[in-house]
Amino acid sequence: MPDPAPTALPVDEARHWSRLMQMAELGAIPGPSPEDRGVNRPCLSPLDREARRLLIRWAGTVGLTVSIDEIGNLFLRHEGTDPSAAPVLSGSHMDSQPNGGRFDGIWGVLAAFEAVQAIRDAGIATRRPIEVVAWTNEEGGRFAPGCMGSMAWAGIEPPSAWDAVTDTAGTTFRQALDEHLAAEADLPRRALGPTGGPSGRAPHAYVEAHIEQGPLLEAEGLDIGVVSGIQGSRWFTVEISGKTDHAGTAPLRLRQDAVQDMLRAITALNALTHDPADVLRFTVGKVEVLPNSSNTVADTARFSVDLRHPDATVLMARGDAIAGVVQAAVRHCRATVRERFHALPTTFDPRVPEAVERAAASLGLRARRLASGAFHDAQFVGSVCPSGMIFVPSRAGISHHPAEYTSSAQLAAGTRALAATLLDLAQS
Amino acid sequence: MPDPAPTALPVDEARHWSRLMQMAELGAIPGPSPEDRGVNRPCLSPLDREARRLLIRWAGTVGLTVSIDEIGNLFLRHEGTDPSAAPVLSGSHMDSQPNGGRFDGIWGVLAAFEAVQAIRDAGIATRRPIEVVAWTNEEGGRFAPGCMGSMAWAGIEPPSAWDAVTDTAGTTFRQALDEHLAAEADLPRRALGPTGGPSGRAPHAYVEAHIEQGPLLEAEGLDIGVVSGIQGSRWFTVEISGKTDHAGTAPLRLRQDAVQDMLRAITALNALTHDPADVLRFTVGKVEVLPNSSNTVADTARFSVDLRHPDATVLMARGDAIAGVVQAAVRHCRATVRERFHALPTTFDPRVPEAVERAAASLGLRARRLASGAFHDAQFVGSVCPSGMIFVPSRAGISHHPAEYTSSAQLAAGTRALAATLLDLAQS
Repeated sequence: MPDPAPTALPVDEARHWSRLMQMAELGAIPGPSPEDRGVNRPCLSPLDREARRLLIRWAGTVGLTVSIDEIGNLFLRHEGTDPSAAPVLSGSHMDSQPNGGRFDGIWGVLAAFEAVQAIRDAGIATRRPIEVVAWTNEEGGRFAPGCMGSMAWAGIEPPSAWDAVTDTAGTTFRQALDEHLAAEADLPRRALGPTGGPSGRAPHAYVEAHIEQGPLLEAEGLDIGVVSGIQGSRWFTVEISGKTDHAGTAPLRLRQDAVQDMLRAITALNALTHDPADVLRFTVGKVEVLPNSSNTVADTARFSVDLRHPDATVLMARGDAIAGVVQAAVRHCRATVRERFHALPTTFDPRVPEAVERAAASLGLRARRLASGAFHDAQFVGSVCPSGMIFVPSRAGISHHPAEYTSSAQLAAGTRALAATLLDLAQS
Repeated sequence: MPDPAPTALPVDEARHWSRLMQMAELGAIPGPSPEDRGVNRPCLSPLDREARRLLIRWAGTVGLTVSIDEIGNLFLRHEGTDPSAAPVLSGSHMDSQPNGGRFDGIWGVLAAFEAVQAIRDAGIATRRPIEVVAWTNEEGGRFAPGCMGSMAWAGIEPPSAWDAVTDTAGTTFRQALDEHLAAEADLPRRALGPTGGPSGRAPHAYVEAHIEQGPLLEAEGLDIGVVSGIQGSRWFTVEISGKTDHAGTAPLRLRQDAVQDMLRAITALNALTHDPADVLRFTVGKVEVLPNSSNTVADTARFSVDLRHPDATVLMARGDAIAGVVQAAVRHCRATVRERFHALPTTFDPRVPEAVERAAASLGLRARRLASGAFHDAQFVGSVCPSGMIFVPSRAGISHHPAEYTSSAQLAAGTRALAATLLDLAQS
């Protein structure tokens, strides 16, 4: 078997960008300029299916074999010279945020696809199979929480755990999944889980390419982020229940004003989560008030808490204190605090970040190690096999928005690093 | 002409309550108990028209003549022995809040109707005509602001001022009004304004019966509130504009978080509007956040400010300070403050409150003077002719909610006081 020079892998930047832009048309959100065009492609929607079908069509022309599992995770397999060897897995997700960008998720799938095609175009036979994967529902935008596909695959929850989760139209995740599987009934099925593929073995490694979604790589003029781990996340919903009143008549001392007690609760949570080092991430991004009438005192205020930190001790301590702090802060209303999602910080097995570092160095790309602020499917896959991620710069650090942008050249550099990494891992 | 004893007026409590309950079925909201049943009857909706038609049917059986004006205000005329005498006007409105009660507004219309019927049933001929009025769109729940009908009648704004106001479904007030007038094309028209009726003269007086919508009368065990005036209101919309960011990646020091700046703005407004005497009413009842996703930093937060005070000086000074206080409070975002509605405090001409006081005393009802916390059509009618209001107790002070409640006996007492007041004014 030849020892290929990674620099020689013929990643085709134009083909790669063209495919990304074709995908961006499926759910396109018009923007003020061609660089500010967004995407709204909810998971398990007709648009999501259309995107998957397009990818499957390309896989057919390249010669990859297709299979799906019971939660809709999609696998495209490049066969190895040793078909029973543990495969190398690479991919990301194809669903988007409701007002999302053209790169989050979908680029990681297309980068893995381009990397495999480049390896095949170079005439290289890899010892291990390489599988491109598209995980179902990473964003959690239509059905919360996110990462359902990778969590179910890793055995953290069975798919039935989310049967009753509904989208805003009242459709359950189970209904959407059944409809989706019926629409893809012609595709070969594989068993759910790490050993569900043709090799019958858990993956040798998983590599996920993704845009950074933060400002660091751009600010430092770097090409590649070698992701060492993912910070932990805890999501809560806080509900404040008071009493409705007429805004003109009820004296303030007699009110049970849910908006005012929400103000007290968030102010207290700001103090709880204050971090002079600015590492802890505390966000109230969603607020709902009822009856939401300008001349009526609100009886209900609901808000989300998104808490993240790379250190499990900090994440646990601050997260566990939230309910008590909210209860102590509200003055006239009752409060309930419910945890909706919980992911401990992940530190990747050093073998994958080291492979990424070698690949970047061999290609002359400027790289640095960093931790991911966002969670990703790699967080859950990492509990099954050595995993890692490759980041490319995000313009102004913007993500989850139509203004999300990474240039074609930056993406191609990331895909070259991914191709070299996958080849390295597939030959080991 | 006889000098009737007001105590003799045969107000029929059972008939009065039955009519109120029939009206409550038009837009009924089921509740946990028969006493907690609400109403949702948006202005100029098919339900509003059905309620008006029902009232018109009753007016026919009693012998009142019907007319409407170009903004849909509905008049039911009891003729006087001197048809050219300035009429006595009494009524309220028939539209409700979206999650409203069965008494707010509609009771004032039915109380005036029952009072007129009682006067007729007693065989009394009044010198002045008495007109029952139902003003269009008092609540402002579907089309903001409220009190359009009485404002247009009083000449404060022409109806065309609100042509472009839309409801949440995108229908303009003009479209809804045109549709309504077409549906009522069979009804006789009168000119808009105080002299538009058959007498050709501005009303001698206006009396509006209404539930208190506050806790005072119930707390003091009283039957009747003699309303001396209405506090002033100013409504504002504050919009905070920042930048969206990924909740997991964006450092807090770099964020332009609209929710956090909204928190700062409301906290500063709480300080601005603080009143140790608890007379000033400051309410944030409506909050909208965009994109309203739990893992995305919000770029927009919009909230309402409802400010009320009986003293015009205080209302003007605090209201005028709002924009500056908001601008000084926001740290990372831009803020805009827009005033949506403005009504100065009203002090009623003493003649009507004095007539109400005499009527209550003659009936042995326990009464006190008070100022109205809510605004009412009487606020605008009061700029044209001597006006006043009669309040009855609201259980627990609750209003704008299905739990709004006043007993049949309490309402009948209020209607008796109204009947005696109208008779007093109509004979003068």
